[in-house]
Amino acid sequence: MSRKSARTKADASRDDWTRRLLAGDRAALARAITAVENETGEARAVLRAIHPRLGHALVVGVTGAPGAGKSTLTGAYIGELRGRGKTVGVVAVDPSSPLTGGALLGDRIRMTEHAADAGVFVRSVAARGHLGGLSRTAARIVDVMDGAGLDVVIVETVGAGQSEVEIAGLAEVKVVVTAPGLGDDVQAIKAGILEIADILVVNKADQPLARRTVSQLERMAGARVGERPTVLATTATTGEGVAALADAIDESAGAKAGGDRRASPLERARRLISLAAAERVRDALGAIEDARMDELCDALLRGDVDTAEAARQALALIGE
Amino acid sequence: MSRKSARTKADASRDDWTRRLLAGDRAALARAITAVENETGEARAVLRAIHPRLGHALVVGVTGAPGAGKSTLTGAYIGELRGRGKTVGVVAVDPSSPLTGGALLGDRIRMTEHAADAGVFVRSVAARGHLGGLSRTAARIVDVMDGAGLDVVIVETVGAGQSEVEIAGLAEVKVVVTAPGLGDDVQAIKAGILEIADILVVNKADQPLARRTVSQLERMAGARVGERPTVLATTATTGEGVAALADAIDESAGAKAGGDRRASPLERARRLISLAAAERVRDALGAIEDARMDELCDALLRGDVDTAEAARQALALIGE
Repeated sequence: MSRKSARTKADASRDDWTRRLLAGDRAALARAITAVENETGEARAVLRAIHPRLGHALVVGVTGAPGAGKSTLTGAYIGELRGRGKTVGVVAVDPSSPLTGGALLGDRIRMTEHAADAGVFVRSVAARGHLGGLSRTAARIVDVMDGAGLDVVIVETVGAGQSEVEIAGLAEVKVVVTAPGLGDDVQAIKAGILEIADILVVNKADQPLARRTVSQLERMAGARVGERPTVLATTATTGEGVAALADAIDESAGAKAGGDRRASPLERARRLISLAAAERVRDALGAIEDARMDELCDALLRGDVDTAEAARQALALIGE
Repeated sequence: MSRKSARTKADASRDDWTRRLLAGDRAALARAITAVENETGEARAVLRAIHPRLGHALVVGVTGAPGAGKSTLTGAYIGELRGRGKTVGVVAVDPSSPLTGGALLGDRIRMTEHAADAGVFVRSVAARGHLGGLSRTAARIVDVMDGAGLDVVIVETVGAGQSEVEIAGLAEVKVVVTAPGLGDDVQAIKAGILEIADILVVNKADQPLARRTVSQLERMAGARVGERPTVLATTATTGEGVAALADAIDESAGAKAGGDRRASPLERARRLISLAAAERVRDALGAIEDARMDELCDALLRGDVDTAEAARQALALIGE
């Protein structure tokens, strides 16, 4: 067998699985995500194949404090979307310790009624390296799910820290979930999470203090600068309020994009590049062995330069 | 009055309050922190005054999930330090929404028995702008407390997200607090928090499941790559285990620095500069209006460049 025919065979096999990817094949999608996530040799073929279709999916971010019933609510929302004939991708981001295996969320969703549904595809992402690493990985997975033709991509994060806010930034519509009696109500909505929400959901609305939490959030939402988020009550376990949530998400997406989502992939790419460049700078400056860096640190400590000027000079050091 | 004599008077007044700062005056310390935090005109005088004394304080990070009794434990640790004749600074970092006012933690500490103690100084920091902003502000406050001569500076953060890990990086000794029955035990120790801990504390050790949590953490600690963290049990409300915690912190600090902490301020400055430079890059790339940036985003989406190469090219765009 000549080398040429072997190469042709490999090309044919690749064309075959990227074609299956575009046809909605789950195994091909799993393989494509792994390739793009890890930037393997196959990544380029995947990205070329999906490029013309990018901007199809509505990307929805779901975040909030642990204990709010976020996974159950996501499951109920998926059910609603399936009932409306939509295919769904879920990127379950769990910034857990690598030691603990992470990605509890994805496992939970996989254990639900959607496990056997070919129209639902779940991918878990656990902590990976630096600040920003999770956000970058999630962005790429959203790209693949989007380009592969899934109608709605849900990015779900555990917790309410600044990294979750980062990741939520990937989504066009940001849903923040809380529940009555989550210890200090205020603590549950922190880290600027309220500021980014398009929709605030009080889940477990059948619990006694739900009305009070809804009122609190409505007050907070009213005080916010800029567009006022929608406040909704749901009971994910019974499905109450879930259809209204799905409608509110569609409405928010429509209001924002005018139905045109073609700019979204470019925005995600810009965010990804900005994060990667920032990380590169941080790593370089953390590791740089240059007497001028030590002098700059001391100049900052002495007050001879302010932080902005020190940052500018530091960038010049690695720009050479 | 000539301009010269007016200037001399202002200089004398400034010398006076920076001298009071070095003498441990609380009002002067509060003023100095505000100046440095906001980089006002007075910042330089403060930094010059404290510069020779930087590296005095032992910097201890305390973090962990909400509900672990972190504030109570911090209060008990402060009491122990005061009993040992140490002065204490606390930087209470609360990444709460600006809308909610933030800084719950500092308020709690202020309400305790240490409120009237001249040897304890608490400063709260709430969310401010970008990712990294909190970490930068906290670093500068640590500098001022350190240079002003406080013996131990505790950096306490609410939550367990990646930004908390960031902030904990300011500290020489990192204490992670959890408690039995905090929902999913695994969730309480996430976001790489376990990886950074020098000391893992199970607080509320009088609760039924405490032994099990200690065993779990000991297993996790044993599996960790690198140096194995110390696992301790405390009951902050009764003071049980708090002296042992203080000893373990001293021991960890001694083992790390060999008692010499002069490198710490330079490390903090380097971290601060790296973060500020990274943020500057991110902001610049997020806002850049240059057709080449759009082309680069599209090249990334098409798979023509990988993330690292896109980051490199993007940096070249703003380096011009």
